[in-house]
Amino acid sequence: MSFDTSSLFRSGLPPAEQPWAPAPRFSFVGGNNDADNVPFGGLAEAAVSVLRREGTSLATYNLGGGPQGYDPLREFICHKLGARAHMACDPGQVLVTSGSLQALDLVNGVFLEPGDTVIVEQATYGGMLSRLARLGVEVLGAELDEHGIRTDALAEQLTALAAAGKRPKYIYTIPTVQNPTGTVMPLERRRELLELARAHKALIFEDDCYADLLWSGERPPTIRSLDGDGGHVVYCGSFSKSIAPALRVGYIVADWPVLARMLALKTDAGSGALEQMVLAEYAASHFDSHVDQLRTVLRAKCDAMTAAVTDSFGNAATFVAPQGGIFLWLAFPDGVDTGALAGPAAAEGIEFNPGAGWSADPAWGRNRLRLCFGAPSPDTIREGVAALAGVFAREAGLGVGR
Amino acid sequence: MSFDTSSLFRSGLPPAEQPWAPAPRFSFVGGNNDADNVPFGGLAEAAVSVLRREGTSLATYNLGGGPQGYDPLREFICHKLGARAHMACDPGQVLVTSGSLQALDLVNGVFLEPGDTVIVEQATYGGMLSRLARLGVEVLGAELDEHGIRTDALAEQLTALAAAGKRPKYIYTIPTVQNPTGTVMPLERRRELLELARAHKALIFEDDCYADLLWSGERPPTIRSLDGDGGHVVYCGSFSKSIAPALRVGYIVADWPVLARMLALKTDAGSGALEQMVLAEYAASHFDSHVDQLRTVLRAKCDAMTAAVTDSFGNAATFVAPQGGIFLWLAFPDGVDTGALAGPAAAEGIEFNPGAGWSADPAWGRNRLRLCFGAPSPDTIREGVAALAGVFAREAGLGVGR
Repeated sequence: MSFDTSSLFRSGLPPAEQPWAPAPRFSFVGGNNDADNVPFGGLAEAAVSVLRREGTSLATYNLGGGPQGYDPLREFICHKLGARAHMACDPGQVLVTSGSLQALDLVNGVFLEPGDTVIVEQATYGGMLSRLARLGVEVLGAELDEHGIRTDALAEQLTALAAAGKRPKYIYTIPTVQNPTGTVMPLERRRELLELARAHKALIFEDDCYADLLWSGERPPTIRSLDGDGGHVVYCGSFSKSIAPALRVGYIVADWPVLARMLALKTDAGSGALEQMVLAEYAASHFDSHVDQLRTVLRAKCDAMTAAVTDSFGNAATFVAPQGGIFLWLAFPDGVDTGALAGPAAAEGIEFNPGAGWSADPAWGRNRLRLCFGAPSPDTIREGVAALAGVFAREAGLGVGR
Repeated sequence: MSFDTSSLFRSGLPPAEQPWAPAPRFSFVGGNNDADNVPFGGLAEAAVSVLRREGTSLATYNLGGGPQGYDPLREFICHKLGARAHMACDPGQVLVTSGSLQALDLVNGVFLEPGDTVIVEQATYGGMLSRLARLGVEVLGAELDEHGIRTDALAEQLTALAAAGKRPKYIYTIPTVQNPTGTVMPLERRRELLELARAHKALIFEDDCYADLLWSGERPPTIRSLDGDGGHVVYCGSFSKSIAPALRVGYIVADWPVLARMLALKTDAGSGALEQMVLAEYAASHFDSHVDQLRTVLRAKCDAMTAAVTDSFGNAATFVAPQGGIFLWLAFPDGVDTGALAGPAAAEGIEFNPGAGWSADPAWGRNRLRLCFGAPSPDTIREGVAALAGVFAREAGLGVGR
């Protein structure tokens, strides 16, 4: 009989992962992207040229450089943020991470301990919420409207917290192409948010992972850029949405006193160097044209998705049309429990993200859900949304639209 | 004045990282490898062929597969372990990690909590010791000789622990090309170690990261292979030493109940897919011939290092000649404090690893040190070791040379 290792497990482990199953026919979950627009030819060319020029440096951890990442990639990130997001930064302020998830872990690792309080957007990235839950942190939701965080409500919230003797460790925001709502915070709101952070001596954690996928192509200045040398904003980004999610390359932009603490927690001997090298080599000459093309494709998918939802759900589902990205956030009438509908949908080969997992207050998110349109084709979107509407009609008595 | 973020840091953070400085002239630290033997041409070819064939899959997290890693890489790992290390495994037992450091973190994450006890080899990998210290775990050293763990002493140690009501969470061993000693544990000892684990219901954590660099090329069976379906061994390996350290690709081989818990902790959306793809494509046809060549080069460097130490330190330094790998472990007379000599050596452009950081009991390691010979040329080795001996003679009064 085999040894039962579980007697040696530490206490408080999360539940075991279930065996993996392939994605169903209609998969509207996960930040996957359009397969036809992965620039694999350009990445291959980049691999050949960068390996020919610098391949021997792979013999040394961190390519013989520092632990903040491959220099030309950090230079490209600074160039890109300057040109596209009005943010001046220098490579010394950039830490390359193994995807933006490691960025979240490093920020959380530096600032959070059990019992702390953080403010997140009322609807926000589920992977952040699950991290915060594991860390034993109190999570408060900031009210959103079609322009992101309602700064008037946040001001009241911060004042009430201060009166209760609580100071949030950070305010986590995805201001540009918010996940899951697809909204963009206007410049004035960004300034107000920064003023609130200053007044309450709070940190802003600005997650800009989806910002390059803004339909208009005109990114507002990052909140960090508005702060000058104020030190109130830690910023993160990623190439997962703009190039390819299976490449695990993200980054943090922060000041040295914060980076120095993160580096002490980043005990991985560096993030994957080949991905950094290939990405930097490719992006230096192709990033802008690639993202322009990708945005066009994704916008067409978004249009297909919003049209399909209107066609199939009619008035039963409401949404604000996304200003970019790969997600649509739907609200259903009170009483609809999207979590309870996930099982019946899965039985028909349809996956979506129930809103509770994407909401600071799961009860508030109960009648909401997230649909990702980056990977499926417009035809699959139409067919899958119609099938989903059928499930909702049958299981929740929702009237199906035109 | 800029906001002082440190007021928001969590308690108990490790000290801030110091700004990075380039390696000095004589760098004998770190698991770096021979720059002239990075197979960058082969990796570039592999990148072109695998991207042409499967590049679109980068659009999906985990390449559309499961979270255990790229299928062809897991198949290659199984093939390699079967052919080279007498270990049968199937891809379902393999989890690809972002370097073997993530493997250590995942194993520790599943098994360890503050107050636990683990047994490690008396001299062992410093990165593991620093991890265990941060986890608040009690670390006991198992006595080593030129054949690895002395199983007779370990038997007594385990019996004494049991009498004290303590059960170690695991016994961490690097049986083949031990870090830092370069020894290889013979088959009979492996069997005895496994019997001890069975008798004490303990887990063995077998770290085989350097095993492909065995001079003889004849790897003994892994301890895990001797366990059959016993479930007593969690195994890890890496491509850092056999291909390139800046590539961050390691792996765990374990049974599903353990892997399922690790996967629940591996919240990184997968390890870098491009590195996995390129490595699998390259290794499938080139791994054996590459490692044969690399081993020849490293053996010559090892010979240069041992000859240089003998020439420059004479009887003042003792060592067991490594059976493979990239490290030499030196012992000096009692009273020599290698940690205190690191500063004077650094002032002359020489880096080494003081033994305390590589020892379960830092006091035991105080008169020892580790020299890495993977990266420097034989000439640099000779020159650097002579310079180091000069520092030791001057600062510690060690008699130099024969």
